[in-house]
Amino acid sequence: MQFELTKEYLNSVKVAIVKADEHALIELLEELHAADISEVIDRLTVDEAKMVLQCVDVGTASEAITHLDEEDRESILEAYSSEEIADQFIENLETDDAADIIQELPDHKKEEVIAHIDDVDQAGQIVDLLNFEEGTAGSIMGKELVKVYENISITDSVTELRRQAEEITNVYTIYVVDEKERLKGRLSLKKLLTAPMSSRIKDIYQSDIRKVKTTDPVEEIASIMEKYDLVALPVVDEIGRLAGRITIDDVVDVIKDEAKEDYQLASGISEDVESTDSIWLLTRARLPWLLLGLLGGIFGARVISIYEGDIQLYPEMAFFIPLVAAMGGNVGVQSSAIVVQGLANKTMGFGGIVHKLTKEFGVALLNGIVCAILVLVYNIVFSDSLNLSYTVSLSLLVVIIYAALFGTFVPLVLDKYKIDPALATGPFITTVNDILGLFIYFLIGRAMYGM
Amino acid sequence: MQFELTKEYLNSVKVAIVKADEHALIELLEELHAADISEVIDRLTVDEAKMVLQCVDVGTASEAITHLDEEDRESILEAYSSEEIADQFIENLETDDAADIIQELPDHKKEEVIAHIDDVDQAGQIVDLLNFEEGTAGSIMGKELVKVYENISITDSVTELRRQAEEITNVYTIYVVDEKERLKGRLSLKKLLTAPMSSRIKDIYQSDIRKVKTTDPVEEIASIMEKYDLVALPVVDEIGRLAGRITIDDVVDVIKDEAKEDYQLASGISEDVESTDSIWLLTRARLPWLLLGLLGGIFGARVISIYEGDIQLYPEMAFFIPLVAAMGGNVGVQSSAIVVQGLANKTMGFGGIVHKLTKEFGVALLNGIVCAILVLVYNIVFSDSLNLSYTVSLSLLVVIIYAALFGTFVPLVLDKYKIDPALATGPFITTVNDILGLFIYFLIGRAMYGM
Repeated sequence: MQFELTKEYLNSVKVAIVKADEHALIELLEELHAADISEVIDRLTVDEAKMVLQCVDVGTASEAITHLDEEDRESILEAYSSEEIADQFIENLETDDAADIIQELPDHKKEEVIAHIDDVDQAGQIVDLLNFEEGTAGSIMGKELVKVYENISITDSVTELRRQAEEITNVYTIYVVDEKERLKGRLSLKKLLTAPMSSRIKDIYQSDIRKVKTTDPVEEIASIMEKYDLVALPVVDEIGRLAGRITIDDVVDVIKDEAKEDYQLASGISEDVESTDSIWLLTRARLPWLLLGLLGGIFGARVISIYEGDIQLYPEMAFFIPLVAAMGGNVGVQSSAIVVQGLANKTMGFGGIVHKLTKEFGVALLNGIVCAILVLVYNIVFSDSLNLSYTVSLSLLVVIIYAALFGTFVPLVLDKYKIDPALATGPFITTVNDILGLFIYFLIGRAMYGM
Repeated sequence: MQFELTKEYLNSVKVAIVKADEHALIELLEELHAADISEVIDRLTVDEAKMVLQCVDVGTASEAITHLDEEDRESILEAYSSEEIADQFIENLETDDAADIIQELPDHKKEEVIAHIDDVDQAGQIVDLLNFEEGTAGSIMGKELVKVYENISITDSVTELRRQAEEITNVYTIYVVDEKERLKGRLSLKKLLTAPMSSRIKDIYQSDIRKVKTTDPVEEIASIMEKYDLVALPVVDEIGRLAGRITIDDVVDVIKDEAKEDYQLASGISEDVESTDSIWLLTRARLPWLLLGLLGGIFGARVISIYEGDIQLYPEMAFFIPLVAAMGGNVGVQSSAIVVQGLANKTMGFGGIVHKLTKEFGVALLNGIVCAILVLVYNIVFSDSLNLSYTVSLSLLVVIIYAALFGTFVPLVLDKYKIDPALATGPFITTVNDILGLFIYFLIGRAMYGM
């Protein structure tokens, strides 16, 4: 059922392109959905992609462009003039998608493209949308919607709806507005089908409609639509006038992007990369965190070098350096992950930072005691040094507790100051905990060995 | 706009419960959506929750139950008899939600609840749904849908649709079937509104409808709905008969759960926990990975102990143990994260394992050379030992390359054998790379120091 891009298929497409065999190309592409076309283009050079886009209908070509990654879209659109972008893509798109694409263009090209849009209404709506700040409801909403005035009858509304529906691909909800365009509620398809044809809209519409403001942040929209299982959500301006609508497919993208970003941050990847990206891009996305780790390792080396004499006397102290460092890192990652997810899903509970740290202390104490006892038993059985055994277990306990508290504290503080708490996950927490874990280990070691 | 559960609000609810003041409770709860009610219940004891559920209408109470976590739902439903579960919850739910809840009940209670459903049609549909294997389209689809036969006219279809719509909350799509109930296509609201009333359905329906089979896996459904921006998706049986429909809200949950699971695995958390869960539950979710890390640390200690004599001679070798171990861990996590995300989003490209490892080798070589040179410069400036400087940089280069290849290889192999590749992320990769990194470091050290 779902189109799968195979090597064979891609080869036939490439062969048809090389042969400039438009018929073969049209035949290969005609069954494909825009999302499939974008997968194909993703594997082609810009010139090849242009040829593919010529061989599908304008609607599909335009929509395929919207499915591409931002970077891929940019490089393809560079190959078109402003007039071509307006005629071949923008004019066939819904206003929200059109505005998104124009938003990404270089400033001089933005104005040129807008100037080339023939449909003045569409151009006006796009300009309106471009004014909204990125990351707000206004910036992801579309202008295409179906609305009826509350004072007309069902019979009149059906005529009106027929007229409006002709210009719109998907009708999600029929909105009801007053004569000042203020959103009053919605008319369900069910009501429209079941109410007597002579009823007035104001008698049958549902007023309990959830709406958001144009200035509301996108993340909040996503959480509302997800929580209340909404397919479309109307957006109103400051005085309650219906300004546009947001549909669930845009929000699914927001949800996926958020999850992906958190995952990448936790894994130490600083740009949105895929395994098919170039070696250069992949390296660039990974090097920053590695350099941070390198810096941490050099600090760690300095910490240990302070205790060089101790190591010469008691080389067994070196054995457990990786264990203490790794456990500090692991615990810190766990703690920060739970906080970051809790903040993202709004399941953090009440209680202030102190309450949360107290609870985390309990969890860490339990985990720490179990780990410390296990490693103590191991060391008493297999190691000759009782000093070492006590040092390792005691520092493990302290490091686990410290790392858990630090891993909880940092994302909570970042969040308080409106910084993305996910920045605290992954390499950052690991690195800091590594260094401080080493300090704790050697300090406790000195005390135990009576140095 | 969105309900926010505050401490004050929860306190007023609790006070009303203690006073058994139903009027106050009804007033507090009446504006809330089912999803909000479930947030309130989540913070209450089972007895308190029962009282809250009594004070809202049955539809809201039933839906609130579906929004709870599985564990919370189980403990609340234990407080109800089978008859109460059927009457107060199941009968007010759509079939897919009803089947999900019954699925979770203990076996003996399952049958009792089904026996108590008064509406025989609903009971039959639920029994049908319960037969589908978990994780398949059949197991998440609902039976509520609106369909028309292809041979009738628009006028007749409107009458028919009015009848069907009365029993259904949300009409997503109007499906068109033939006389054998086989899915032929869909009738858009737009077409219904704009076509002449005398047309026959077969002349105006759209046949290009995407559908899935009852046996298709849920993850595939999620990826289809996401890719093609679908709000609802029809499900057909082996011979193409319309069996049910899946809506985007169910799929958003699947997408979120998948992302959450991957994130938790990468962070070393083995159960689905939230920061509001009990200390005991949080400890249990975190201990398994910590024990794995502990085991890794003990192995690491054994590796280093082999080289105890070397450390006594050259204690500076100990300085860079954490750096080498940590870098191996970081690189491994990055590499596995990219593979796991690529597999999840189907953006892995073609090329076999060898091709992917070759590319990863290129990325690792670049990253490794940069890191090795930086640390070499540092060591030449700040350290007295040229042997140490060469040892650290060379082993860093080898470890980074090795860790990247291993981090790419393991999830690819797991995926090939149908094991969740996300298992390879986080603590597992970190731990293995820690140990092998140490081996590489000391082996190279021996060679450099000419031991």
